[in-house]
Amino acid sequence: MFKKVLKFGGTSVGTIERIQHVAKIIKNEQSSGNKVIVVVSAMAGKTNELIDLSNKISSEFNKRELDVLLSSGEQVTCALLSGALIDLKIKAKSWLNWQIPILTNGDHANARIVNMNVEKINKYLEDKGVAIIPGFQGISKNGDVTTIGRGGSDATAVAVAKIFNADTCEIYTDVDGVFSTDPNKIPVAKKIDKISYDEMLELSSLGAKVMQPSAVQTAMMYDIPLEVRSTFTERKGTKIFSQENIDYTKSVTGVAYSKDDAKITIIGVQDRPGIAANIFEPLSKAQINVDMVIQNISSDQKTTDITFTVKRDDVFKTKEILRKNNKIKYNEIIHNDKVAKVSIVGAGMVSTPGVTYRMFRALSDENINILAISTSEIKLSVIINENNILKAIKKLHTIFDLD
Amino acid sequence: MFKKVLKFGGTSVGTIERIQHVAKIIKNEQSSGNKVIVVVSAMAGKTNELIDLSNKISSEFNKRELDVLLSSGEQVTCALLSGALIDLKIKAKSWLNWQIPILTNGDHANARIVNMNVEKINKYLEDKGVAIIPGFQGISKNGDVTTIGRGGSDATAVAVAKIFNADTCEIYTDVDGVFSTDPNKIPVAKKIDKISYDEMLELSSLGAKVMQPSAVQTAMMYDIPLEVRSTFTERKGTKIFSQENIDYTKSVTGVAYSKDDAKITIIGVQDRPGIAANIFEPLSKAQINVDMVIQNISSDQKTTDITFTVKRDDVFKTKEILRKNNKIKYNEIIHNDKVAKVSIVGAGMVSTPGVTYRMFRALSDENINILAISTSEIKLSVIINENNILKAIKKLHTIFDLD
Repeated sequence: MFKKVLKFGGTSVGTIERIQHVAKIIKNEQSSGNKVIVVVSAMAGKTNELIDLSNKISSEFNKRELDVLLSSGEQVTCALLSGALIDLKIKAKSWLNWQIPILTNGDHANARIVNMNVEKINKYLEDKGVAIIPGFQGISKNGDVTTIGRGGSDATAVAVAKIFNADTCEIYTDVDGVFSTDPNKIPVAKKIDKISYDEMLELSSLGAKVMQPSAVQTAMMYDIPLEVRSTFTERKGTKIFSQENIDYTKSVTGVAYSKDDAKITIIGVQDRPGIAANIFEPLSKAQINVDMVIQNISSDQKTTDITFTVKRDDVFKTKEILRKNNKIKYNEIIHNDKVAKVSIVGAGMVSTPGVTYRMFRALSDENINILAISTSEIKLSVIINENNILKAIKKLHTIFDLD
Repeated sequence: MFKKVLKFGGTSVGTIERIQHVAKIIKNEQSSGNKVIVVVSAMAGKTNELIDLSNKISSEFNKRELDVLLSSGEQVTCALLSGALIDLKIKAKSWLNWQIPILTNGDHANARIVNMNVEKINKYLEDKGVAIIPGFQGISKNGDVTTIGRGGSDATAVAVAKIFNADTCEIYTDVDGVFSTDPNKIPVAKKIDKISYDEMLELSSLGAKVMQPSAVQTAMMYDIPLEVRSTFTERKGTKIFSQENIDYTKSVTGVAYSKDDAKITIIGVQDRPGIAANIFEPLSKAQINVDMVIQNISSDQKTTDITFTVKRDDVFKTKEILRKNNKIKYNEIIHNDKVAKVSIVGAGMVSTPGVTYRMFRALSDENINILAISTSEIKLSVIINENNILKAIKKLHTIFDLD
């Protein structure tokens, strides 16, 4: 007998028929003798609908009340799914944020789950009940409703798995699992059976948005085995666990990409200690998310060129902030907002010589110019012109044996 | 300075524009120096929408989960209205059922409010905050969400007024107040400025459904002054308070009616003690609402005829139950399902001789046959053929000086 956390995302519970289908999946798990805790999202579209209502009142709608408003979405799913299970003669019950309670720290719309009371629900599981819990929310020390950010139901699921000491946490979604690259673009993309937390993190933050990155991070920290699988097929999903349990026959696990990037280069920056901090601190304060940063050794030992990437929408704002920044001296700022990032990800890369070289050679064979390079232990990213992106993904997918 | 409870029904908060309009009404009350507690319903249509979702899962959807589901509707209104007030620079806060808490007794979907914690909200009112409370719901001793029946937001408002010792309870709705009869049918119908609880009860249970009867009853029991008024006009509404404070210059306050009635007569029932109980107990157990009951003295001292009215939809079921009832003996059961009830209501009736006679004469002048009669201290109801209903209402409205 396992204790399982099953999480169902918005599309999985998007209609009554789907909720009834999800109830059957849960019934199967419970009938197999597992103890089941279910975490649900709001029905697809519901959260946006509620946000639209609040925006009609004010674009700066009070954050405390926004949390009260949005948390109602998961409450509705909890009640409907519990009712659907009871209709299938399964003992089930919704447990709202305050009934458990799910305790959080931090600001409205951006809280973190710090604890939950396990006693009552554990007793309920012992009595063969299925507990249905709303994702994305909790209550603060002061007794206010708090939410934990978009996609927060994944974080709830992982927190529940950790706090209830579950054997596994299964993320049911609308795709079959994590793929070696985007299956909508590259038909030969393959579902990955097993992947490490680190690789999953690199893939998810790079555009394969199957799971919320911070939830994966928490799972990694507490070594909670995850599985991402489809609500709509019987196929096995992707298992995600710690690196040491994975046998790396392949050096590269997947090819990720992100669009809508822009590259900004500051030419001729005075090269002295603290200059990078002086550049990036004001950007961070302005909520501009800087992705890759590349700095070359300066040829004249006095000035250097710093290149970094931001989202395309932020280019204008970024350049404004740089221009107004009187702590830095430079010759010129240039930008290219028609670029994209392609990355190969694999925990086996570090122990496989030549991966870097093979990637560069492959791109060169396709006449794709590399505009910037950035590497980590398990990832190698390049910036290229955006019209080359599909060609690059295809080529890399093939040469690293992912087809 | 007054402590006021303001209650806004579903149509009053049916759109974002209306919620913003309601926020302005509240702002005015608060700026005048009043302490304001607001009770809100779900946005118009919302509760039915949620019920439809549950019905798609099961016509016998679990009652505990239905309460969790439905209670989300008022939660949404609370958050939106609080946000709208804050946007107008008014200090405001939603207080959910468990945050207050609102304690209830009784079954799911049919609970009663027994208490609320007043301390925190009273302090908040002292600090010039407006408290927004969801109508229609509470939590049980076991910590489950409970609802108190359709139209229950009125009951919440009156309970809040009582428990918080408010000076007045204002029911904002989509009509200008209580009318002498249905203004949609009889254009000369007049808004009543003042009415007693008893009269209001007779009028509301007879079809002038401006306020939920049990809420009026509670207000009467605790002598809480009510006012029913429109959200959409500046006009004064109808004040409802105890009889002794009303100066009765008119014997009749209003003319009420109900349609969709049916009359059933059991002819030749054995007339012995307990027979009425034997007839009506099984009907009550089957949830059939029996309205008027008329029993004449029997001519032969052995048998009698019993006539009563039920809703038209219940005729078949009622006759089935009577036929299967082996505790009663009778000759025949007849029914007429094309009848309606017209009533004159007025706390001054009892002290005004001739009201009864004038009603019967007026109907006779219009050639309207009276099929049954029932009277109480402040009401006189007759059953007539339904095609005479409009003629009857008009005539009675005129002869009792209500035009």
